[in-house]
Amino acid sequence: MVAAGRASKELGSRITSRLNLEPVEAGLKTFPDGEVYCRYGESIRGADLFIVQSICGSEREGLTANDALMELLLMVHAAKHSSAHRIIAVCPWYGYSRQDKKSAPREPISARLVAELLEVAGIDRLVTMDLHAGQVQGFFSKTVDHMTAMPILSQYVQDHLAGEELVIIAPDAGRVKLVRNFARKLGAPYALMEKERPAHQVAQTGYVIGDVQGKIAVILDD
Amino acid sequence: MVAAGRASKELGSRITSRLNLEPVEAGLKTFPDGEVYCRYGESIRGADLFIVQSICGSEREGLTANDALMELLLMVHAAKHSSAHRIIAVCPWYGYSRQDKKSAPREPISARLVAELLEVAGIDRLVTMDLHAGQVQGFFSKTVDHMTAMPILSQYVQDHLAGEELVIIAPDAGRVKLVRNFARKLGAPYALMEKERPAHQVAQTGYVIGDVQGKIAVILDD
Amino acid sequence: MVAAGRASKELGSRITSRLNLEPVEAGLKTFPDGEVYCRYGESIRGADLFIVQSICGSEREGLTANDALMELLLMVHAAKHSSAHRIIAVCPWYGYSRQDKKSAPREPISARLVAELLEVAGIDRLVTMDLHAGQVQGFFSKTVDHMTAMPILSQYVQDHLAGEELVIIAPDAGRVKLVRNFARKLGAPYALMEKERPAHQVAQTGYVIGDVQGKIAVILDD
Amino acid sequence: MVAAGRASKELGSRITSRLNLEPVEAGLKTFPDGEVYCRYGESIRGADLFIVQSICGSEREGLTANDALMELLLMVHAAKHSSAHRIIAVCPWYGYSRQDKKSAPREPISARLVAELLEVAGIDRLVTMDLHAGQVQGFFSKTVDHMTAMPILSQYVQDHLAGEELVIIAPDAGRVKLVRNFARKLGAPYALMEKERPAHQVAQTGYVIGDVQGKIAVILDD
Amino acid sequence: MVAAGRASKELGSRITSRLNLEPVEAGLKTFPDGEVYCRYGESIRGADLFIVQSICGSEREGLTANDALMELLLMVHAAKHSSAHRIIAVCPWYGYSRQDKKSAPREPISARLVAELLEVAGIDRLVTMDLHAGQVQGFFSKTVDHMTAMPILSQYVQDHLAGEELVIIAPDAGRVKLVRNFARKLGAPYALMEKERPAHQVAQTGYVIGDVQGKIAVILDD
Amino acid sequence: MVAAGRASKELGSRITSRLNLEPVEAGLKTFPDGEVYCRYGESIRGADLFIVQSICGSEREGLTANDALMELLLMVHAAKHSSAHRIIAVCPWYGYSRQDKKSAPREPISARLVAELLEVAGIDRLVTMDLHAGQVQGFFSKTVDHMTAMPILSQYVQDHLAGEELVIIAPDAGRVKLVRNFARKLGAPYALMEKERPAHQVAQTGYVIGDVQGKIAVILDD
Repeated sequence: MVAAGRASKELGSRITSRLNLEPVEAGLKTFPDGEVYCRYGESIRGADLFIVQSICGSEREGLTANDALMELLLMVHAAKHSSAHRIIAVCPWYGYSRQDKKSAPREPISARLVAELLEVAGIDRLVTMDLHAGQVQGFFSKTVDHMTAMPILSQYVQDHLAGEELVIIAPDAGRVKLVRNFARKLGAPYALMEKERPAHQVAQTGYVIGDVQGKIAVILDD
Repeated sequence: MVAAGRASKELGSRITSRLNLEPVEAGLKTFPDGEVYCRYGESIRGADLFIVQSICGSEREGLTANDALMELLLMVHAAKHSSAHRIIAVCPWYGYSRQDKKSAPREPISARLVAELLEVAGIDRLVTMDLHAGQVQGFFSKTVDHMTAMPILSQYVQDHLAGEELVIIAPDAGRVKLVRNFARKLGAPYALMEKERPAHQVAQTGYVIGDVQGKIAVILDD
Repeated sequence: MVAAGRASKELGSRITSRLNLEPVEAGLKTFPDGEVYCRYGESIRGADLFIVQSICGSEREGLTANDALMELLLMVHAAKHSSAHRIIAVCPWYGYSRQDKKSAPREPISARLVAELLEVAGIDRLVTMDLHAGQVQGFFSKTVDHMTAMPILSQYVQDHLAGEELVIIAPDAGRVKLVRNFARKLGAPYALMEKERPAHQVAQTGYVIGDVQGKIAVILDD
Repeated sequence: MVAAGRASKELGSRITSRLNLEPVEAGLKTFPDGEVYCRYGESIRGADLFIVQSICGSEREGLTANDALMELLLMVHAAKHSSAHRIIAVCPWYGYSRQDKKSAPREPISARLVAELLEVAGIDRLVTMDLHAGQVQGFFSKTVDHMTAMPILSQYVQDHLAGEELVIIAPDAGRVKLVRNFARKLGAPYALMEKERPAHQVAQTGYVIGDVQGKIAVILDD
Repeated sequence: MVAAGRASKELGSRITSRLNLEPVEAGLKTFPDGEVYCRYGESIRGADLFIVQSICGSEREGLTANDALMELLLMVHAAKHSSAHRIIAVCPWYGYSRQDKKSAPREPISARLVAELLEVAGIDRLVTMDLHAGQVQGFFSKTVDHMTAMPILSQYVQDHLAGEELVIIAPDAGRVKLVRNFARKLGAPYALMEKERPAHQVAQTGYVIGDVQGKIAVILDD
Repeated sequence: MVAAGRASKELGSRITSRLNLEPVEAGLKTFPDGEVYCRYGESIRGADLFIVQSICGSEREGLTANDALMELLLMVHAAKHSSAHRIIAVCPWYGYSRQDKKSAPREPISARLVAELLEVAGIDRLVTMDLHAGQVQGFFSKTVDHMTAMPILSQYVQDHLAGEELVIIAPDAGRVKLVRNFARKLGAPYALMEKERPAHQVAQTGYVIGDVQGKIAVILDD
């Protein structure tokens, strides 16, 4: 069975219509004090329940990213105590995934906290995509299916820019590895952008490491 | 040491000024995508850290109740991994506390979920007030200090309505026990309000169980 | 498969005979030093095992409430390590359920402790009835099926007192909500009893809040 | 601080009087339905609390072994939620310790279950004596202080039977190792008793393995 | 499905050939720095995976006992995160099983640690044989199938020494119980060996407790 | 107190001599079957025990990386059950840290497994250095002190190559971020090396992205 949170309503209905399934109505609403509520509209006892919800805000629904996260946690918790057999969270966008290590002392590793919240709420498995760092998978005790849209994106570039002389650009040093793999798929070279502030009070200047002259630049970021 | 979340800024500064302490700066901010961030401005290694944050929205700060909850969880998580000795969450208002049992099948026991989230994030102790049901304390493995403002409230009524013939009113059946205790402290009788819909399509009518005629009614609700 | 503890022998055999099943012999006995022993008489490997045992004493069997609890825990533990697939404790009476919150400092929340004992012993699910407070369900990480005998009881009153003018009485303030629901099912009004001790050394007097004159009173307690 | 359960009242008062301490009153009682209750009579916040209770019945107090166990668990649980700093269970007799492995399929390892119950209730440490098998210490995640009365017992034999030619007897094969250590301390030989039933329907006969003739036999059992 | 570690290659292939199964290729190798690596050669999603690996060194493979243990743990961990349905470790020899209690203060109970390592890595069940002490089964929260080769061994003695007057010898006091059971199966008497050092600086002498004269001695050790 | 494993003997004695401490003797040895043993030579009850052991092999001591890991785990486990107050593992080299994510399906995230092993054995804190990826810190529930030797290394280059025109080289795309930070500290540019195999059966060729001509190249790897 498939249920969708309000931050992924459209994706949820695309999935269910593709599968020729009726989505499970989750009875979601927000009380005037901002608390979220859910109640499944039919029995999910014994079911493998897929809960589709990206952990991000939705302007249309008036949800912040944290509202979406808490809604997901409540749906998981309610499903567990309604005797679902297995609960699979499907989160194409994994919120807080960029805060996946300590860049400075005394800050949180938020992506780890989110993993702990999902597990304590009761997920049996997570399906997610193109995590900022593959190591986030190691934040979980439960199984994670880590999928990637890279083949679709590189195919798109190949289809639309065939025959051109390309160079793939990494917008910063942290993306170089990803960019290299992308470039290899296309048989193209790559380069990276760097910013520098030669001295205090002097304007920051950008430059490129690698050879880009005369090529079509494809910039890859997340 | 004492730090305050943005949903309890004022309470936090009242507490620290009463204790003649400097609050710990928590470096809180919200990113454009709605994710919350914190970073303690000074070392909390080895400290007993009290984190003051009611789990409720704040219009002034532009936070939903879930933003406040996630901010609290991140502050707890960051404190734990910054080697605080003990972490005490001080939540005068415990969000989702009214959803403390299943009133209908397939809904969550949200107050239990919140307890699990706080514990997995890393609290050592919770200080809270006037829970909707005392049983919520049993949702925790960690120690809970459950305080009450009842003496202050009953004192207030006694001071301002001394000499009057009072009756304390429970607005619904679920509040009767609380109302009884309150009434006893004041030496006053109590009564309860009831609503009834004699038949479908007939207007709902309210009435009172107990004797209230000629008395000053004090209604007690949460 | 169904096995019964000695505190629920009769219920166990009623259940198995209704289901046309042979009960699993649990080989229960008490050693002279008071320790309880069990050994399943047949393989339960891979089975969904229902263990029927109310957590209460049995004079006929010479068991205290704690003997019954420990017997249940041992049966669950032995079943788990004998490779039962799922273990469902069926406890119509959940012992210690009235001690479900702290009424005074430094006392236990015994109903929470019982939940923790059952879970650590190895239950996968609990089936119980008419808990003193629905919040007890929130003491569990495992799923609880919370059933109620209220419809049967209200039906009984309806069948035997049809046409009479009834009033349903709550014997104390803590039972009002339950009584209200019961009264609504019968379309009858309700009232509550209150006790008062006007001053020290003066006899306690009882009175009723609500209108009961000339009606047949049905008192509802647990 | 030291508190004693009802199964070890005398030991508890001996310990406290030897330490010149006032015992903590635990407010223990048994309700008519057999449920046990405790409430500490004074604050134990921040204390290292030693709870003395052998896990065995007490005829004088009308407690079964399971009553004593549940009383201990409730005392531990209440102490934890009353903010004791550390909780040390002192159980000279560890109930169910003889059921420390599976002698037959589908029976419990009860001593392991007791370890899990004590840990989930909240002990930080266990002090116990002369376990039937030292391996029981490995059933715990928490630290166990495993003490022995062997030196006192062997001293006693030495003092009272000095100059005699002794032989120490193991009443069955499972006690041989213990008996050997005991015998070594006394510089005496040892032997073991064996029972045999040559054939079905023939009386069981006992014999001794080892040389005992003309010596004073000291039988060692637990 | 069945996979084998390098310490039990031969056993693994005997098992799979007896079951007419293809073993799952585990892609095991050791990096130059001594770290072990595994990668399953085919999908094990949803499978009941039996991982055969004794926890002992293999000279042929150049593995120490700890290499074999870590290889087993990695295979279990990888299987869990590759969505195996159930993971059963088959360890005919359970390493560290002789260190199953504290013989001296401040030493580890290594067999308990191994149990904790296996469980945290993700086993659902352990199959092992003839543990040094049956209590080791109580070190696990997961189910243990504890098998014994005793019937095969006693049958072997019976077949090859039929008609002889036997005596079964325990090489030390710790093995007496095992020896007694073995002797009973054969209908033979038993005896035990003892070593003694009468005084410091005097040679240790051995002697036998029990009657062995003129009999064929069968010594039983592990 | 400080104890050292055999893989970090020298580091351990340097630390203790710098601190003017006597190291705690850990009584480490390897049995002929390859199992490791430890026994602390003095009481560590109540101590903050630092256990120094890199998780890597030691040829001099005849230990594989897994021997070193298991030795560390046994030391931690023994310390916990010997009532150490806190146990801090000091592992300058964290074994298996390069296997910190899934590069291919069905392989382990070994660095996560090592984190779980350390935590279940009983560490309270880990001190480690220059992890291959900072995200590994998020594999732990316990606190990690993640230190870096980068300032010492960059200082070394600065001292020895002052005045030279440098370029810092990343040997592969995965090291670019680290190299950039290093280069910034030195005020030098950086470049990265790339390998390419234009077609199958054609030799692999390396080239450099960025400008290196006429500069002194400093290659940074781990």
